[in-house]
Amino acid sequence: MPDSTSPRTTVKRLPDRAAYDRETVNAILDEALICHVGFDDGEGPIVIPTIHARVGNTLYLHGSAASRMLRTIGRGVPMCVTVTLLDGIVLAKSHFHSSMNYRSAVVVGRGQVVDDAAEKDTAFAAIAEKMAPGRWDGARRPNDNERRATLVVAIPIVEASAKIRRGGPDDDPEDLMLDFWAGVIPIATNRGPPEEYVADPL
Amino acid sequence: MPDSTSPRTTVKRLPDRAAYDRETVNAILDEALICHVGFDDGEGPIVIPTIHARVGNTLYLHGSAASRMLRTIGRGVPMCVTVTLLDGIVLAKSHFHSSMNYRSAVVVGRGQVVDDAAEKDTAFAAIAEKMAPGRWDGARRPNDNERRATLVVAIPIVEASAKIRRGGPDDDPEDLMLDFWAGVIPIATNRGPPEEYVADPL
Repeated sequence: MPDSTSPRTTVKRLPDRAAYDRETVNAILDEALICHVGFDDGEGPIVIPTIHARVGNTLYLHGSAASRMLRTIGRGVPMCVTVTLLDGIVLAKSHFHSSMNYRSAVVVGRGQVVDDAAEKDTAFAAIAEKMAPGRWDGARRPNDNERRATLVVAIPIVEASAKIRRGGPDDDPEDLMLDFWAGVIPIATNRGPPEEYVADPL
Repeated sequence: MPDSTSPRTTVKRLPDRAAYDRETVNAILDEALICHVGFDDGEGPIVIPTIHARVGNTLYLHGSAASRMLRTIGRGVPMCVTVTLLDGIVLAKSHFHSSMNYRSAVVVGRGQVVDDAAEKDTAFAAIAEKMAPGRWDGARRPNDNERRATLVVAIPIVEASAKIRRGGPDDDPEDLMLDFWAGVIPIATNRGPPEEYVADPL
């Protein structure tokens, strides 16, 4: 269901790679551990990576109350959040048709600072669970000072799109018999074995 | 040597995590397979992922001559290229001190379209070698039609910064004895075994 398109998030190039349904956008937002936030710092666009979490149709960002990025987007200026999952390097017989397999989602809109304590905790919990499932109950929750020191910005997921490329190279027929290797090098982002840090008993 | 700082790329938060030397910035740019490009599409900032390659102090982006992103930044408007390497999820005893280990580089500036055929090939070669070492000689090179259909934008790496977080959680001393697991879940981006695509012999 194209419930979240607009001229800005309509994929102009290669529209066969585009998807607008909320489920596809949400799945990409949820799988990605970090996003890239675009905003104007007064001199031009700037892009900053950060962790995000989605709750329903809202995207939450959080960080220090002193963060320039959060303070700027918290004022409700136009902004963009993009996440990208890289799935493979597509090597065609020609450089021209070489490409990447990926799933990306772009959300444009305006954020607003979350002041409500319960909604702030909802955002904290979602971010903790994204870092490690079950983690919200697995660490000390924020106290009042920490809550005050942390800015949470909510971005409604209204204008959004996804773009996906999958599969092998799309070579020109006349290139197919060229004696070059063609195929896909899969790319995966993996979590390794957890490394415990034990406090030094002083 | 801080040869590439400016007020815009000075890391305001946690300056101990910041690095400005060209070698550090270059190493991050080179290791990252994709970047996120921020520009203003006329209605606000937008962030688009793409592959990049660095040659000396120049960053190259390429793609279809019809790409809105490349046509916009090719006009020399203010823009930003950010790359992020995610290295780990840092789980502290408290949610407040939980974090991510990462290496990121931010380049701000203005791009320009590359018309010179030799420089265009330099960019194509650098991108091919980034996708797979030795690949520039391992696939058919662009012909004149393909060269015309491909836009290359060069961005001088003048104003740039890197930000790096490494190591374990920085817990408050009074939290150290809490009975929660604390440590790092390493994150790695890995290339899997190449999957060959063999042309259907029709």
